[in-house]
Amino acid sequence: MKLSTESYKGVRDFYPEDKFIQNYIFKKLRETVERFGYLEYDASILESAELYKAKSGEEIVNEQTYTFTDRGDREVTLRPEMTPTIARMIAAREKELTFPLRWYSIPNLFRYEKPQRGRLREHWQLNIDLFGVDSVDADAEVISVAHAILRNLGAQDDQFVVKINSRRIINAMYDHFELTFDERQKTSKLIDKKSKISVESYLASLSLVISETKATELDRILSSSERLITFLGENNPHTQEIVNLIEQLASRGITNVEFSPTLMRGFDYYTGVVFELFDNHPENNRSLFGGGRYDDLLDIFGARKIPAVGFGMGDVTAKDFLEVHGLLPKYTSSAEVHICTLSASERPTAQTLADTLRKDSINTSIDLSNKKIGDQLKYASKQSIPYVIIIGEDEVKSGIFSIKNLASGEEQKLKVEEIVALLKPPVQAHA
Amino acid sequence: MKLSTESYKGVRDFYPEDKFIQNYIFKKLRETVERFGYLEYDASILESAELYKAKSGEEIVNEQTYTFTDRGDREVTLRPEMTPTIARMIAAREKELTFPLRWYSIPNLFRYEKPQRGRLREHWQLNIDLFGVDSVDADAEVISVAHAILRNLGAQDDQFVVKINSRRIINAMYDHFELTFDERQKTSKLIDKKSKISVESYLASLSLVISETKATELDRILSSSERLITFLGENNPHTQEIVNLIEQLASRGITNVEFSPTLMRGFDYYTGVVFELFDNHPENNRSLFGGGRYDDLLDIFGARKIPAVGFGMGDVTAKDFLEVHGLLPKYTSSAEVHICTLSASERPTAQTLADTLRKDSINTSIDLSNKKIGDQLKYASKQSIPYVIIIGEDEVKSGIFSIKNLASGEEQKLKVEEIVALLKPPVQAHA
Repeated sequence: MKLSTESYKGVRDFYPEDKFIQNYIFKKLRETVERFGYLEYDASILESAELYKAKSGEEIVNEQTYTFTDRGDREVTLRPEMTPTIARMIAAREKELTFPLRWYSIPNLFRYEKPQRGRLREHWQLNIDLFGVDSVDADAEVISVAHAILRNLGAQDDQFVVKINSRRIINAMYDHFELTFDERQKTSKLIDKKSKISVESYLASLSLVISETKATELDRILSSSERLITFLGENNPHTQEIVNLIEQLASRGITNVEFSPTLMRGFDYYTGVVFELFDNHPENNRSLFGGGRYDDLLDIFGARKIPAVGFGMGDVTAKDFLEVHGLLPKYTSSAEVHICTLSASERPTAQTLADTLRKDSINTSIDLSNKKIGDQLKYASKQSIPYVIIIGEDEVKSGIFSIKNLASGEEQKLKVEEIVALLKPPVQAHA
Repeated sequence: MKLSTESYKGVRDFYPEDKFIQNYIFKKLRETVERFGYLEYDASILESAELYKAKSGEEIVNEQTYTFTDRGDREVTLRPEMTPTIARMIAAREKELTFPLRWYSIPNLFRYEKPQRGRLREHWQLNIDLFGVDSVDADAEVISVAHAILRNLGAQDDQFVVKINSRRIINAMYDHFELTFDERQKTSKLIDKKSKISVESYLASLSLVISETKATELDRILSSSERLITFLGENNPHTQEIVNLIEQLASRGITNVEFSPTLMRGFDYYTGVVFELFDNHPENNRSLFGGGRYDDLLDIFGARKIPAVGFGMGDVTAKDFLEVHGLLPKYTSSAEVHICTLSASERPTAQTLADTLRKDSINTSIDLSNKKIGDQLKYASKQSIPYVIIIGEDEVKSGIFSIKNLASGEEQKLKVEEIVALLKPPVQAHA
């Protein structure tokens, strides 16, 4: 029998060049969030299906997630998002943990759906959350972390925009129009879709949910942030919160911020500020990632109310952003130098040299192929290893080695200490 | 409804202190294997069940793995080991890849069994493999990587031993005794169990599989490496291979090596040298990790024969080893300094200072709790953050800040540049 070499449908194999990109992105994410004092946590991808049914309902869990029954008759789900897991972990140790908590994780998440461009069945997602602070200072911090991530990945402020809105403001407006719970949900979904459909079709649909008069008035108010602020009044606490947030960000140099009254965000659990980072690139004009405040999520565990704000950022979207803006790093091997030998009899010298270089933190591979020297050099070049050292009988005797930079073609004859000085990784601050 | 906060049975939640340990171990593993030029690859945990049935048989896959049918009627398995995946990936690009390949990964693996001490349903495992070199030089390299990992984790040579054996030697011995395929398998299983049962019971069982005469003779030969070498003859190529391997390792300073004729290793796919690293600690006297040569694995994909040697190292075993030898690092927060304010009105100064420190690569958190200053200090201490800065009205005016080392209690009044100089991470070689 001949087995297929294809991966399972909708998931990815990461060959070294792919993993190199993912590692680069994850390293930048970790570096940035730890700069703000966030701590990494993690959990298994296996969770009880109960955890998702509580919030999303049985049908959604059964249809959109990987859920199966184990031999102990437990219903198990491959986690489709991380927030229920962090809520569970915090609820479990609510009394021992010292709040506020700044936590992050880069879990892989699973969803069961038809694979299509940019919608895979498995993807990775940075999640950061700040638990235990109910003031807008926390919202400002989390947004500034999101901003810092894109900057740390090489983006300029004019390449993206931070859109913010507040569920509290939207709810105040719904209160004014005296909308029922059901009307609110449907209205929010329509507002969320507004940019993707025509104005006529949007207004027609909205008129069916609420009255035509209300729909026209609501659309007028939401058409600009100024109108919305005027409508609610400048003394409205929710308006003040958004203004305060924008001012805080501006005072810290974050000015590519927009108050967007039509920004809704999908999840039902948001209770306050919501935000999204949008790509300004004409070929990738879409939401990069987002989050918001969700103060009630621990309810499902019977735990006390703990205010929370956070966001999630997917690896596929992040990579697309970097690609379209030309910010992806060039691939290089983990090895900095490859040691080649003219024959197997120089191998012991090569091994000794390799071990010496490794002790000096120089990543070194060694050629064990017994191929011709030309093929050994071709190999190093194909593997994107920057340097090669060539050892023959003369080098074994003299202890002076020929080292070649494969990019420039430059070749030098150096003693071991000189090779170490040349290749020793640049001394730099520990990240 | 009140949901349970427990994790799924047999898997772990990683709170920040747990993740800190895991990150420490993984960082050391990555650092070491990249020092030898190994490249990271990865894949999804979801694989077609076929991939495992080919080698392990339907029954084992159904009983010992998480296998379920998706809605597209595909049988999916949560990967129980990484080797079939890497074999699949290499077979898929066999023609484009440049051999030899040095690849590594740290996947999470799943097995369905009763959870018990040290036997979880999900664990992580470093896997390294060298594909495309059939000489014993490759075995020596892979063993030297294993040795370097433990050394890099702080272990001394007398704390562990490298046990090696060769399937080729064992097969030559079986050939001599003219054992059938079935007898070989049963004999190998018994030899593997020898150290766990009494000599009498071992010999009795072995006599049932082969004859009593053969059992006694075989046991005598296997009782010491010298006897085995004498039995096969010093000119036997398999004996020479093991002697060469031990000499190569010794010439590179790796001398805690033992030729152990009774070392079997579980997996059926090994074809040559096999090895294990054993913990010498009296309280943890057991196999830490191991591997070997498997030259025939790509057969199942109909690909050409590619020689391979590699090993796997589990995260639980690694942690146990470090624990018992007192080699675990002390937990510290990702934040190096926590900025406290006497009141909310100093917050803008705190934010500006925090952003300045972050620009200088200093991981900085900020207190947003509005609690009393004593509580803010207690918080920093509980979070294991090494330093605190306290800002009041005076500090805002003077630009001179009070910074306290929480471990020593030492307090200094410093300007921003002086704080940067104090906290700036030690300049060190890039790992």
